[in-house]
Amino acid sequence: MNTFPTKDLFTVIFNRKSVRQFADNTVFRTEAEILLKAAMAAPTARNIQPWLFYVITNRKILDQLAEELPYAKMLSQAPLAIVVAGDTKKGNPNEEQVLNWALDCSAATQNLLLAAEALNLGAVWTGVYPYKARMATVSNALKLPQHIIPLNIIPIGYPLMDDRPKDKWDAEKVKWVE
Amino acid sequence: MNTFPTKDLFTVIFNRKSVRQFADNTVFRTEAEILLKAAMAAPTARNIQPWLFYVITNRKILDQLAEELPYAKMLSQAPLAIVVAGDTKKGNPNEEQVLNWALDCSAATQNLLLAAEALNLGAVWTGVYPYKARMATVSNALKLPQHIIPLNIIPIGYPLMDDRPKDKWDAEKVKWVE
Repeated sequence: MNTFPTKDLFTVIFNRKSVRQFADNTVFRTEAEILLKAAMAAPTARNIQPWLFYVITNRKILDQLAEELPYAKMLSQAPLAIVVAGDTKKGNPNEEQVLNWALDCSAATQNLLLAAEALNLGAVWTGVYPYKARMATVSNALKLPQHIIPLNIIPIGYPLMDDRPKDKWDAEKVKWVE
Repeated sequence: MNTFPTKDLFTVIFNRKSVRQFADNTVFRTEAEILLKAAMAAPTARNIQPWLFYVITNRKILDQLAEELPYAKMLSQAPLAIVVAGDTKKGNPNEEQVLNWALDCSAATQNLLLAAEALNLGAVWTGVYPYKARMATVSNALKLPQHIIPLNIIPIGYPLMDDRPKDKWDAEKVKWVE
């Protein structure tokens, strides 16, 4: 079984940062599995769990995506990347519900990013959905059927640099309705 | 300053559950602030931070929303609720980018839910966006301008029951691209 590291939640939340430069170290399958277990613990609307996770270690595909995607050049350095994708047929959603997959997969992605931070891995959410050209690029590379939509691609590796988190706290963003 | 509890990330991730029944205990403003600090540490596309957080303790508004929303009846029991909302004008997004607010706010919501679990609070993501009728209900109750869109409303309180998390791990949802 996987060994889960012990790391304090709030420390992880406040230290998580986008990492875009990676060292040569391999990311092992057991490490990827920990990330995926965290991801699948996220909540989903009506408990549909409309997600799929493509774990890419194929060098040719990583390099091809690095070349073809506009904001994911760091894939050429990353030993591994995960595409979080939504199954838009899951639970037979009606037109009004169909976007739920993107919200559910975003919550799962956040769990995955926190788990990466806890493993001392670096990762960065690079957006695929809702950009049509990027969606086509990823779908082609992974040969996804039409009802599977890639939300993002997350390059993952051990950080090369000492990246620092942003402090985004802003009291003005809070409205007290008392 | 707030005191952040020390709780292990993976324990929190795997113990987080949807809590829909609440005890009478008050949730304090200092507790809500911890949740909001966690929420605002989430990543956002192009670092736009398109979020707003409405913290509702007004009993009349909570009860009104409990009555008018189809899947948020537990608001009538909750001492507090947080609406995570997106500012669709932030960063002047073009049409292709505009949905990013919903993904960013979903990631922030996940941080918020994990923080609630770490504080031994119970919470549940009840969907507002993309349901037009629910969006209108919440927007009316909070008098939101048109460009502010409520993603969800999260009733929060101390759990009445001993709710248990679901185990959603499913190896079939992982595709290895090697």
